[in-house]
Amino acid sequence: MAIMVVGSVALDTVETPRGRRTGALGGACTYFSTAASLFSRVRMVGVVGTDFPEEYIGFLQGRDIDLEGLQVEEGKTFAWSGRYGEDMGDAETLSTELNLFAEFHPVVPESYRTSPYVFLANIDPQLQLEVLAQVEHPRLTALDSMNYWIDSQRDALTKAMSRVNLVVLNETEVQMYSGEQNLVSAADAILSLGPWAVVIKRGGEGSMLVTRGESLGQRVFVTPAYLLPSITDPTGAGDTFAGGMMGYLAETGDLSVRGLRQALVYGTIVASHTVQGFSVDALCNLTRQDLVQRYNDHRRMTLYDTTSAPDTDWFDRSIV
Amino acid sequence: MAIMVVGSVALDTVETPRGRRTGALGGACTYFSTAASLFSRVRMVGVVGTDFPEEYIGFLQGRDIDLEGLQVEEGKTFAWSGRYGEDMGDAETLSTELNLFAEFHPVVPESYRTSPYVFLANIDPQLQLEVLAQVEHPRLTALDSMNYWIDSQRDALTKAMSRVNLVVLNETEVQMYSGEQNLVSAADAILSLGPWAVVIKRGGEGSMLVTRGESLGQRVFVTPAYLLPSITDPTGAGDTFAGGMMGYLAETGDLSVRGLRQALVYGTIVASHTVQGFSVDALCNLTRQDLVQRYNDHRRMTLYDTTSAPDTDWFDRSIV
Repeated sequence: MAIMVVGSVALDTVETPRGRRTGALGGACTYFSTAASLFSRVRMVGVVGTDFPEEYIGFLQGRDIDLEGLQVEEGKTFAWSGRYGEDMGDAETLSTELNLFAEFHPVVPESYRTSPYVFLANIDPQLQLEVLAQVEHPRLTALDSMNYWIDSQRDALTKAMSRVNLVVLNETEVQMYSGEQNLVSAADAILSLGPWAVVIKRGGEGSMLVTRGESLGQRVFVTPAYLLPSITDPTGAGDTFAGGMMGYLAETGDLSVRGLRQALVYGTIVASHTVQGFSVDALCNLTRQDLVQRYNDHRRMTLYDTTSAPDTDWFDRSIV
Repeated sequence: MAIMVVGSVALDTVETPRGRRTGALGGACTYFSTAASLFSRVRMVGVVGTDFPEEYIGFLQGRDIDLEGLQVEEGKTFAWSGRYGEDMGDAETLSTELNLFAEFHPVVPESYRTSPYVFLANIDPQLQLEVLAQVEHPRLTALDSMNYWIDSQRDALTKAMSRVNLVVLNETEVQMYSGEQNLVSAADAILSLGPWAVVIKRGGEGSMLVTRGESLGQRVFVTPAYLLPSITDPTGAGDTFAGGMMGYLAETGDLSVRGLRQALVYGTIVASHTVQGFSVDALCNLTRQDLVQRYNDHRRMTLYDTTSAPDTDWFDRSIV
């Protein structure tokens, strides 16, 4: 089933210890779409300027991504420039030119309005609310955000989080929003707003899923990142994690605890490929077989007991 | 089967945001023994002074721990004092009085010499080598160490690591010893010395096991800590992790990939109990049922696929 995604499309200039790229295809919406298109049909909502290279349009079309909602306007595309240190941790932002993105108001095309899966990438929560007002009966809605909006638009963000089914944030963001250091308590504070589940992205440490449920092990899922010998460029890891996760959910339609947990692992696997190249390079020629292979290796990496799983009724239960 | 453990027995004064304890039962050897005694018979080698409380001797005897190798000498017991901050990370050491421990030379009693399992807790690697020279045909030997010995006794530590089967270190220590930031590469550097496996303790992040093998998922096991709402005192977490792990191995005798991985998870579970009380308090009344219950909940917390495991022949293979 189709996923609609709203967010930034950008031209990135990135420097890492492994090299440098200028004017590369970037932005949360682009990363998410490229990843999700490994599993499902994707519909983009965003804005670019007349400087946006034709070949990038061609690349996205080649992945069968619907670009009806991608506004092309007179002016310049959002441009970001950043540098990563030897630890490949958070990027040092060298420049951010919002350009056309500064005045962006998402317009959901008629043909997108009944999209069953909706992902609101990290943009002003006011705009996320505008998008939610333009869609009809989605099966699953999710949002991402960032420290900037937690500080400057807390009320709008709270409202947006209370209106989506899935909140996807990184570790620092859930702690910052909730004021809780303990990640389960932090996720619980967000769950109390209404979402079915909170997904916590933890970079090289992997990810966590917190839902409602009985025992800790039933309601909290903890899974490691796929270990890599080295990283080329961490940009887009979080967005392609979300894209892989949502793409897998839209493909399977499985909203059980099992379905969500497997979606997180597929997100993990897609993100592990992303960081092995600059921009979306490493996702270009990725096959389904590559994903399944690494998914199976992730299973091996985390396996310790092959006796039948303890009381799996909860595992098949819907999170809705 | 019996485990012999050599290391420090101490009187600890600990302050955490949850409270303060003076003269509490502490030391790596004590923590390890208490944890391992949940699974197997334990034989201690260490030294205490005449100030060591009778009740502590009674406590250890009550756990059926063999104290023939515990030297009681005229003088004072090793005393450590430390304080933990709100994050419960590394302790700030307020004072270390080595006392009798400064001149300690481990003497392995005749009745201990054929112990099938041997654990060398964190002491001078020269002493670890002295102990290895006093044991006969152990089935499994393991050692722990610390930054201080990596700096000051690198050659002796290298020699000791090359003579044991299992090296148990924390994340910072494997990185420091190997000069590698990547944990798998760091473990590989240690594996190249000869041990069968490297166990990396990662505190609140859980642990890793690196063995030889084909794919990443076959040779690297990554498993999270059991999540807790709060921690009372982190002292002894690493030592009781090792104690639970070695105790389980000695009980089952299973040196397959499966056996080792399950041992790591039992170590994880024991450590998760340890930090819920001061000193060894939380281990005192722990039952086997408590451990199995939390082990099963850890399985739930990490479970995402119940279809039959991918090619499990490697899983049953011996690591020897």
